[in-house]
Amino acid sequence: MPEALQLLVRALSRLPGVGRRTAERMAHKLLLRDRVLLRDLREALERADRELILCSRCGNLSTLDRDPCKLCTDPARDAGFLCVVEAAPDIQILEQTRAFSGRYFCLQGKLSPMQNETVGRDTVERLCVRIREDEVKEVLLALNTDVESDATAAMLAEMLRPLGVKVSRLAFGIPAGSGLAYSDPETLQRALRGRQDMG
Amino acid sequence: MPEALQLLVRALSRLPGVGRRTAERMAHKLLLRDRVLLRDLREALERADRELILCSRCGNLSTLDRDPCKLCTDPARDAGFLCVVEAAPDIQILEQTRAFSGRYFCLQGKLSPMQNETVGRDTVERLCVRIREDEVKEVLLALNTDVESDATAAMLAEMLRPLGVKVSRLAFGIPAGSGLAYSDPETLQRALRGRQDMG
Repeated sequence: MPEALQLLVRALSRLPGVGRRTAERMAHKLLLRDRVLLRDLREALERADRELILCSRCGNLSTLDRDPCKLCTDPARDAGFLCVVEAAPDIQILEQTRAFSGRYFCLQGKLSPMQNETVGRDTVERLCVRIREDEVKEVLLALNTDVESDATAAMLAEMLRPLGVKVSRLAFGIPAGSGLAYSDPETLQRALRGRQDMG
Repeated sequence: MPEALQLLVRALSRLPGVGRRTAERMAHKLLLRDRVLLRDLREALERADRELILCSRCGNLSTLDRDPCKLCTDPARDAGFLCVVEAAPDIQILEQTRAFSGRYFCLQGKLSPMQNETVGRDTVERLCVRIREDEVKEVLLALNTDVESDATAAMLAEMLRPLGVKVSRLAFGIPAGSGLAYSDPETLQRALRGRQDMG
C-alpha cells in the first residue's frame, strides 16, 4: 500500500465509529471514485479549522469574529440561570425546545475516572469562576442519564455546594409519546420516585 | 449552525456509511476535541490527492511516478492471464493469496442496469483492447457472488466470446474452515453443482 494511502486510512480510522475496514472503503471511494468529494472534504476541513473556535465563555462552537458567542452575549438571556451540558451539540438540542432562556456552560465530557475523556479540574474551576462572576442563582445540570453522567451530576452538585448556588437537574421520567410498555425498569423506577402531584 | 460547520457536516455525510448524525458527531469531535486529527486528516487528503493516481492499464491505485503500476510492469507476471475484478481493493486481497501471477483489470463497478455505478461501454471496450494487445489467453472473472455480479459475469462472458479467449470464473463452494451448517442453501446448491471428483 502506498504511504499516502496508509496515512489517509489511518487518519480516517481515528474518526468516531470508523474502523479499519470502513476507513479503507472511504479512502477508496475518495481516491477511485470521488475526487470531487475528496477536495470538498479537504476544503471544508480547512475552512472549519480556520473559522470555527470554541467560545471562551461557554465552550460552544462559534466563529472567529464572535467570542464570546451569540448566546453568551445576548442581553435578553438570563445570566443568573446557567445550564451545564456535557457536549456542545447538546446546546443546539436544548435551544430547539425554546424552553430555556439562561446561559450555557459546556463540560466537554464527563467527570468520570473510568473514561479517557474526563473533565479536568480546570473545567470545574472555570465553572466556579463563571458562577461567581455572573452571580448565578441556579445551575441546571442538563446531563445525560447513563451511570457516568449520574456520577458527574453527583460530583458537580457536591463541588458546587460551597458556592451556595441552587443546583437542579433535568427531570427523569417516561418520554413524551411513549408508554409504560416501552420503558425499561430503571426509567419506570425514576418516574415513580419523581411522580408528580396532580392536586 | 455556522456555515463552515454546515459545509463540513455535509461533506462528511457523503462518505460511505456515514449518515447526518454520524457526520455531526465526527465534525464535533474534529472541531471541539481533536484539532490534531482535523489537521492530520486534511494533510492526508491533500497528499493522497496529489500523489495517488489510477494505473492507466489496470485501474489499481498507484503513485504519480508509477504509471503503469508495479503489477502491470513486473516482467515475472504472465500478461496472457488476465484477472478481472470489480474494485481495486480486490486486487490487494487476491495478491495476499500469492496464488495468482497474471495481470489485473479493474472494472470499477458492475455491469448492472439496476445500479448507479455501472460499468460503461468504454470500460468493456478498454478490456477488449487490452485482451487483444496483450494476446491474453485466459480471462479469469474474480467477481463477487451477488446477483448483480453474476449478471456482470454472464454479460462479460458473452461480450468476450467473439475474441476467442478462454473465460473462467472463481469456483463457488463452501468456504474453508466452515461447515454445512453455516452455509446458506444457495451456497450449498452451487457446491453440489460444482462437486469435485476425488478420483
